[in-house]
Amino acid sequence: MSIEKPLSFDAIIAAAETLKGIARETPLLESALLNEQLGRRLLVKPECLQLTGSFKFRGAYNTLAGLPAAQRAQGVVAFSSGNHAQGVALAARMFDVPAVIIMPADAPRLKIDNTRSYGADVILYDRNTEDREAICRDLSESQGLTLVKPYDQVSVIAGQGTVGLEISQQCHAIGVTPNAVFVPCGGGGLTSGVATALSTASPETQVVGVEPSDFDDTVRSLDAGERLGVAAGGASACDALLSPMPGEITFPILQARDVRATSVTDDQAFQAMQVAYESLKLVAEPGGAVALAAALAPTFADYAGIDPTSTVVAVISGGNVDADMFARALLRAKQDG
Amino acid sequence: MSIEKPLSFDAIIAAAETLKGIARETPLLESALLNEQLGRRLLVKPECLQLTGSFKFRGAYNTLAGLPAAQRAQGVVAFSSGNHAQGVALAARMFDVPAVIIMPADAPRLKIDNTRSYGADVILYDRNTEDREAICRDLSESQGLTLVKPYDQVSVIAGQGTVGLEISQQCHAIGVTPNAVFVPCGGGGLTSGVATALSTASPETQVVGVEPSDFDDTVRSLDAGERLGVAAGGASACDALLSPMPGEITFPILQARDVRATSVTDDQAFQAMQVAYESLKLVAEPGGAVALAAALAPTFADYAGIDPTSTVVAVISGGNVDADMFARALLRAKQDG
Repeated sequence: MSIEKPLSFDAIIAAAETLKGIARETPLLESALLNEQLGRRLLVKPECLQLTGSFKFRGAYNTLAGLPAAQRAQGVVAFSSGNHAQGVALAARMFDVPAVIIMPADAPRLKIDNTRSYGADVILYDRNTEDREAICRDLSESQGLTLVKPYDQVSVIAGQGTVGLEISQQCHAIGVTPNAVFVPCGGGGLTSGVATALSTASPETQVVGVEPSDFDDTVRSLDAGERLGVAAGGASACDALLSPMPGEITFPILQARDVRATSVTDDQAFQAMQVAYESLKLVAEPGGAVALAAALAPTFADYAGIDPTSTVVAVISGGNVDADMFARALLRAKQDG
Repeated sequence: MSIEKPLSFDAIIAAAETLKGIARETPLLESALLNEQLGRRLLVKPECLQLTGSFKFRGAYNTLAGLPAAQRAQGVVAFSSGNHAQGVALAARMFDVPAVIIMPADAPRLKIDNTRSYGADVILYDRNTEDREAICRDLSESQGLTLVKPYDQVSVIAGQGTVGLEISQQCHAIGVTPNAVFVPCGGGGLTSGVATALSTASPETQVVGVEPSDFDDTVRSLDAGERLGVAAGGASACDALLSPMPGEITFPILQARDVRATSVTDDQAFQAMQVAYESLKLVAEPGGAVALAAALAPTFADYAGIDPTSTVVAVISGGNVDADMFARALLRAKQDG
């Protein structure tokens, strides 16, 4: 790892080539009514429409594609609350190699079921008493499986960076240079990938990582200039974004690319799910909706230093949410609104 | 009107040219897991992602674009339960001309609110005691407004037919010839447009119109060989598909293009909404989901005469559904499933 050259733009271009005709090029959507209400142009990149319902498929497939064939044939292992799990499971299935996925027992039902449906061997662990990385390591050693990390791996970040590449190309096609791109931020794989892509493809664009307020480790780490963990005892419905600390590889990229970060409450995420539902007809999961939530916030210009009449892009990173939770979010946001 | 030459393929090509860069070219989506469960390939054309949240914008814009400028400047009038209303309202706004929309007082709140938000003057009427066509005629005469019909107008049907054109082009691009395309069917504008497009662009493809079971006028009319009305006293949550009889212009097209028709229950529509939610992360309204419901039905091969291992396309025609209803559909389908 090197801070000076953490991940090259060319690696993202190569990932885009690898994913061509395999991953979906998700469209860039907007709502005339929503733009009018906001007084600015808001473009949404719906990675909930990606294969497996989240952007995670991109990094997983790109990583498997880059493994030597003999090593890949032995199989892969991953730990994940659900979206990376599904991404790795589908990629493994496409390459017809085994996949073992370590998931927390309290992950959303839909994510566990789908991961199994893609043919992966799912091992559930207790988030409070067991160490997923140790389980993973044991499996990797005993069965010869290659670990596919959820974010702290260059091939994974390069795959996620293709989201940024597509945003720049799609904005260019409609003659727009976005002032900011808001990205849901857990371990920082998507945010650092998008920032790397845009720093070359759209250097005037500010990238903003968005976290749940109880898991604002990136906000605090960028402020402090070093990797800090989250405060103990936090909770959030954004199950995809519960990483305790920015990644070793991702964090220096965020710093080098001048990424900013902010956080939103779960209620703001639920309201953003309602906006995605009503204005764009999209299903967003809570963690998938945080960037949209930040882009919708009236004060977003303050923390991002962005002209309030500007054009912004928000990535909806995933849509894997149980029906009960989705219904609750819709009705809750409605009561509030 | 002529039965021999009801609507030309060239008119649809011209409509596509008119709509280029204006309407959205909606993608063709699928789910690997869903395909596996079904044992066939199911492609979904999500017109819920179209501007205004339904395909209706296509026909409305194409119609306004075709009016002489002086006539268009006087304004337009339409009657609609909501999707055509929004389509006409947005098209009128784009041309900066007035629009008056006659809507039933019991139309979904979201549809009424959105139509107003697009700047249209909305007049609510009582579905049981007032004649919307008479209200429309009076307005048309007194204010010089041009009527944009919801389906029984060639320029409208040509616009909706661009959905079929895109389906054929998108299928061609992935090397697939669909055995059948399922289309939600109310007055028959979308179904007759899609059938006209595909009869030239993909002649091996069977078009199947799908209705709510209490509003199966097209099923009965095609069986009888003449336009028949629905039985009295029917009810359905599919508010977009409550037309009482196939159109004068649309019906002969359905006959000439060998369209078949079938119907689904409201519960099947709710289950399809749940499938669109879970497998595709899309919001479908009840009427928008009926074609998907038919394509999901295990017995669909029987009524459509289609090889059960074939590739089929289902159009989701719209996604404008109130949050209460959507939440109910998700939880109801979940209980049943």
